Amino acid sequence: MRTKFPVDCQSGPLEKSFKLTRVGVTGVKKPVMVRRGGKDHFLVAEIDVFVNLPSTQRGSHMSRNVEVINEMIDSSVRLKVKSLEQLAANICKTLLERHDYASNAEVRMTADYFIEKKPDGGKKSLEVYKLMAKARATREDGLMKQVGVEVQGMTVCPCAMETAFMKLEQEVPELKMIEGKVPTISHNQRNRTALMIEVPEQVDIEADDLIEIVESSLSSPTFGVLKRADEANVVIEAHRNPRFVEDVVRDILGKLLRKYRRLGDSVHVTVRSESEESIHKHNAFAERDTTLGELRGK
Amino acid sequence: MRTKFPVDCQSGPLEKSFKLTRVGVTGVKKPVMVRRGGKDHFLVAEIDVFVNLPSTQRGSHMSRNVEVINEMIDSSVRLKVKSLEQLAANICKTLLERHDYASNAEVRMTADYFIEKKPDGGKKSLEVYKLMAKARATREDGLMKQVGVEVQGMTVCPCAMETAFMKLEQEVPELKMIEGKVPTISHNQRNRTALMIEVPEQVDIEADDLIEIVESSLSSPTFGVLKRADEANVVIEAHRNPRFVEDVVRDILGKLLRKYRRLGDSVHVTVRSESEESIHKHNAFAERDTTLGELRGK
Amino acid sequence: MRTKFPVDCQSGPLEKSFKLTRVGVTGVKKPVMVRRGGKDHFLVAEIDVFVNLPSTQRGSHMSRNVEVINEMIDSSVRLKVKSLEQLAANICKTLLERHDYASNAEVRMTADYFIEKKPDGGKKSLEVYKLMAKARATREDGLMKQVGVEVQGMTVCPCAMETAFMKLEQEVPELKMIEGKVPTISHNQRNRTALMIEVPEQVDIEADDLIEIVESSLSSPTFGVLKRADEANVVIEAHRNPRFVEDVVRDILGKLLRKYRRLGDSVHVTVRSESEESIHKHNAFAERDTTLGELRGK
Amino acid sequence: MRTKFPVDCQSGPLEKSFKLTRVGVTGVKKPVMVRRGGKDHFLVAEIDVFVNLPSTQRGSHMSRNVEVINEMIDSSVRLKVKSLEQLAANICKTLLERHDYASNAEVRMTADYFIEKKPDGGKKSLEVYKLMAKARATREDGLMKQVGVEVQGMTVCPCAMETAFMKLEQEVPELKMIEGKVPTISHNQRNRTALMIEVPEQVDIEADDLIEIVESSLSSPTFGVLKRADEANVVIEAHRNPRFVEDVVRDILGKLLRKYRRLGDSVHVTVRSESEESIHKHNAFAERDTTLGELRGK
Repeated sequence: MRTKFPVDCQSGPLEKSFKLTRVGVTGVKKPVMVRRGGKDHFLVAEIDVFVNLPSTQRGSHMSRNVEVINEMIDSSVRLKVKSLEQLAANICKTLLERHDYASNAEVRMTADYFIEKKPDGGKKSLEVYKLMAKARATREDGLMKQVGVEVQGMTVCPCAMETAFMKLEQEVPELKMIEGKVPTISHNQRNRTALMIEVPEQVDIEADDLIEIVESSLSSPTFGVLKRADEANVVIEAHRNPRFVEDVVRDILGKLLRKYRRLGDSVHVTVRSESEESIHKHNAFAERDTTLGELRGK
Repeated sequence: MRTKFPVDCQSGPLEKSFKLTRVGVTGVKKPVMVRRGGKDHFLVAEIDVFVNLPSTQRGSHMSRNVEVINEMIDSSVRLKVKSLEQLAANICKTLLERHDYASNAEVRMTADYFIEKKPDGGKKSLEVYKLMAKARATREDGLMKQVGVEVQGMTVCPCAMETAFMKLEQEVPELKMIEGKVPTISHNQRNRTALMIEVPEQVDIEADDLIEIVESSLSSPTFGVLKRADEANVVIEAHRNPRFVEDVVRDILGKLLRKYRRLGDSVHVTVRSESEESIHKHNAFAERDTTLGELRGK
Repeated sequence: MRTKFPVDCQSGPLEKSFKLTRVGVTGVKKPVMVRRGGKDHFLVAEIDVFVNLPSTQRGSHMSRNVEVINEMIDSSVRLKVKSLEQLAANICKTLLERHDYASNAEVRMTADYFIEKKPDGGKKSLEVYKLMAKARATREDGLMKQVGVEVQGMTVCPCAMETAFMKLEQEVPELKMIEGKVPTISHNQRNRTALMIEVPEQVDIEADDLIEIVESSLSSPTFGVLKRADEANVVIEAHRNPRFVEDVVRDILGKLLRKYRRLGDSVHVTVRSESEESIHKHNAFAERDTTLGELRGK
Repeated sequence: MRTKFPVDCQSGPLEKSFKLTRVGVTGVKKPVMVRRGGKDHFLVAEIDVFVNLPSTQRGSHMSRNVEVINEMIDSSVRLKVKSLEQLAANICKTLLERHDYASNAEVRMTADYFIEKKPDGGKKSLEVYKLMAKARATREDGLMKQVGVEVQGMTVCPCAMETAFMKLEQEVPELKMIEGKVPTISHNQRNRTALMIEVPEQVDIEADDLIEIVESSLSSPTFGVLKRADEANVVIEAHRNPRFVEDVVRDILGKLLRKYRRLGDSVHVTVRSESEESIHKHNAFAERDTTLGELRGK
C-alpha cells in the first residue's frame, strides 16, 4: 500500500531477478569548460553514464545521473578542471556516491575540439578534432580513466603507387629516369584515425600530443585553408609518405611507446584507422587493442 | 457528446485555423519489388508520404497513409510495377483518393540498388547505388514524377595536379620530358553525385542509364573488387580524367541534354556532386537545379 | 602554356558550358561566439557556403570560402556579433566581394544551443536546442537572412486519448464520473519541431523567443532533470494538453502572427513538426511553408 | 628491386613491427538471400570483415576480403543458406583459408528484416526489424557464431504512472474508486531493444523467436497500421504493462533461460534496451552482457 509521496518504485525489493551490467542515460548534451595550458577550452560534450544494478533492486534512479553530470560540470567551471577525462572521472566517482547500491560506474564523453594549425608557409585555421574520454570506477579497484582523439587526415596507398608506376613505365620507359625523384600517382582519401589511452593516476596525457602523434603518422594532415602552393605541398608530401591503414596504426603504436616510456605495462591502448577508400565504396580498416606491456613485446 | 465508437477527432471541424502544406508519415520501411528488363529487383525502400490539409480540418488520417503504401506495394508485386517512380506515382494517386479533403499528395522513396559491374579486364562484383523516386499529384494538374540516382565514385583534382606538376618540375627538370605522357599526382577522393530528373507521362527513364551518365562523368567509377592490375588501371584512368565537382555536374548536364533530346523544356533536373576532399575535413560541392529548357539555353 | 606559378585553372575560360546554381563547401566546423543579452554564447557551428557560377568560368575558388568563414568568425569575436544569422549574413556579403564572378551567395549554419530551464518547482538544468541560420545575398536584391530553432519536446495524441477513454468506459462505467477531471491515457513521444523565419533588415528576432513559441505549442517541454514530483507534473500537464503534429504547427503559426505583428507580408516562415510515434516505427509529420502575408489570410 | 608485375607490397617482410588485432574492410553492402521455413528472405546486408595480422607482414590483402564475401554470397544463393549467421560463418572460415598468415577472422553483418504482424483484430502489415550476425573463427579453437535482432517497440514508465496517480488522487479523490481497473497516464516512448546470442554448433536459433521474445518483453509491440480501435487497444495494453528498460532486459533474460534450456553455460548473451524518453531529450539505457551460465546463477 502506498503511504507517502513521492513513491520510489525503483527501490522496490526484487526477488530472484537478474543483476544488470549497465543502467543509465545516453545522449546527454552539455556545454563543458576545461582549462589547459592557461587557456579555457569550451566544449559541447555528448555524455553517457552508467552504473551496475544488483539483482535485488528493480530500477536505477535515472534522474540522479543527470543531476550528477550537472553538478560536476558546474564545479568543473569553478574549479578549472583540466581535461575531459578528469571531468569524466569526477562524474564517475560521484555516481558511485549517489547510487549506493552500485558497485561500479562508467562514463563516456565525446566533444568537438579545435586547434589552430597551418600548413608549412600557409595560413592558420582552426582544425576540428574529436576528443574522447572514458572513466570507470569500482568500489574495490578504484578508478580507471582514458583519453582519446579522433583525427581526420589523408592516406595515400603505397600498393597502387607501385603498380601504377610499373604500368606507366611499360608505356613510357623514360619514367624510369625520374624514379625516386618524383612521386607516382596513387589513390588517396580521407582517413579517420582514433587513438585511446589509459591515463594512470598522477599522470597527465595531453590530447594535443595524441593528435600530434596521429597526424604525423598519416600520409599528411589536412587543413581548412590551402592556397594553391600549399595544396601542391600537401599533395607532394603525402605522396612521399604513402601509408596503408596498417602502417598508420603501427606508426602510432611505435610513437606511443617512445613518448610514454614511463607508463606501466598495464596501460590500455586502442588505435583504429579507417580509410574512406577513393577507389571503393567501402572502407579499409586496421586496429590494435592492447596494453603497453604487450606492445613492448610487440 | 460522444455517441459512437470509434470517434474521429481528426475530422472535427475547425474554425479560423491555418491550412498545412504537408501532413503525413516519414521513415516507413518496406520491401518492394520492381520488374525491369525481364528481371525482378528486390528493394528495401524508405518512404515518406504527405497530403496537404485544408484549414477546416483538424488532422489528417495518418493510418490511411501506411494502408495505401501497403496496398500499392502488394499490387505492385502482382502487377509487376516497372520502377520505383511508378510505385511512388501509384501511391500518390491513391493517397488523393483516400484523403478526399486533400488537393495534393507527395511521395518520396529511396532504396539501395545493385548492378553487376566490373573494371576492364577485372572481376565482376555487385556495386551499390541509391535509387530515388518522387511523385506529386494535384487534383487539377495531374501527376509529376521524378527518378533519381546517387552514385559513389572518384574525383581527381585538376588544380592540385597542375600546381604539383609545376612544383615538382622546379625540383626535377626532367619531369618536363614526360609531361602529357604520365599523369601527375593530385589529391583524389570519394565523391557522391546525385541526379534527379522528371519523368513525363508516356516516357520511360532507366535508372541504369542515369547511373551510367553519372559514372562516366566522374574521374572514375569505383569497384568492390580490384586486383592489383585493375587498381593500377583505375588510378591511371582517373588521373587522366581529373575533375572538379563543377566539371562533374556540367558533364552530366551535357549528357542529359544529348540523351533526353526528345524530352520537353519544362522537364525538371537537379544534379548535385559532393567530393569528400582528401586534403580537407570538409567537402566540395556543386549543384544545378533547373529545367531542360533552361539548360538548352545553357 | 603555363607561364607562372601558381596557375589558376579554376579561372580558365570556358566556352559553351552551363552555369551552376551553387558551388561551395559543406560541413565546415568552427567555434563561433555570439553576444546576446549581455552574455557571450559559445557555439560549435557546422557551416555550408555557396556562390553561383557563371557559364564562362570553370571552377569556383574553393579555398576563399573557408578564408571568408575564418575572417568573419575572427571579426565577429572582436566586434561582438549578436546572432548566428548576423554572422551568416556577414559571411554571405563577403563571399560576394571575394567571388567577383558570382551574382549570389548562400550560407547555412547550425549549432547546438543551451538555455537554462526548469520545470515548475523543479531543478534548473541546461536544455539543448538546435540553432539554425541562413543568409542569401544577391548583387541586385540585397540580403535575406533567416533564423531558426529546432526544439525537442513531447506530444500526447488526442485521438488515442478519446478512443482509449471510450474503450475503458465500456469496461469500467465509473470512469464516466471522473471524465474531464482526470486525463486519460494515450500514446506520447519525443517530438522534434523546427521553426525558421526571415529576419528583415533593422529587425531583431530572438532565438529564445522562437524556442519559447515552439515549447509552449507542444503538449509539454522536456527537461534534463525531473525528480518524481516534477515528472508527475510534466506527465499530467502534457496529457491535459494533447496535440497532433498538425496542432503543434498551427499553434506556432498563430503565435508567430501575434508576436511578429509588425513584420511585413513578404516575410518567409517554415514550421515543421515530427513526432517519433511511440506506437509506430515511423514518424508523424506536419509542415507549413509560407509567408506571413499568406498566413494572415490563413 | 621490382622484377615482376604485379608487385605484392603487402607481403613485404617487416622487421620488428607490431601485430594487429583486426585488419579488413567495413561498410560493404550486398544483397543476400537466406532460405528459412521454406521461404526465401531477401536481405540488403552491411558487412564488415577482418583478419588479424602478424608482426611480420606489412599489409593484409584487402581485395581478397570482398572476393570472399562475393563468393560466399553467390554460393549461399545456390546452396540455400539458412541464416545470416551461417553466411557470416562461411565467410569467416573462407577468410582464414585465403589469408594464410592470419590466425583468426571476424565477420559482422546487419540487415533490415521484415515479418508480417498484426495487432489483435487489426490489419496485417510488414514490420521492420534489424537482423544482426557475427562470426569469429580461430585456427585453433574453431568457430563461434552469434545471431541477434534489434526491435523497436513501446515502453510505458511504471514510476511516472505511480506518481501521476498519487498526484491526481489528491485532486480527484474519486480516482481511488477505479484504481486497478483503469490504467493511469504515464510517459511512454519508442524503445529500441537488441538481443544477441551465441549459436553453438549443431544448434539452430530462429531470429523470429528472438524477435518474439523481445516484443513480448516490452510494454507493447508497435505496428505500421493501427485503425482507431486497434490504437486504443495498444495504448491500453501498454499501460497495463508498464516497464522500465531494466524490466525489459530482465524479462528477456528470463525468457532466454526458459527457451534455450538445452544450451550450455558458456553461451554468450547480450541484451540492451534503450528508451527514447518522451519527457527528456536523452535516452534511458540498460544492458546485461553475460553467459547463460552466469544467468543461471542470476
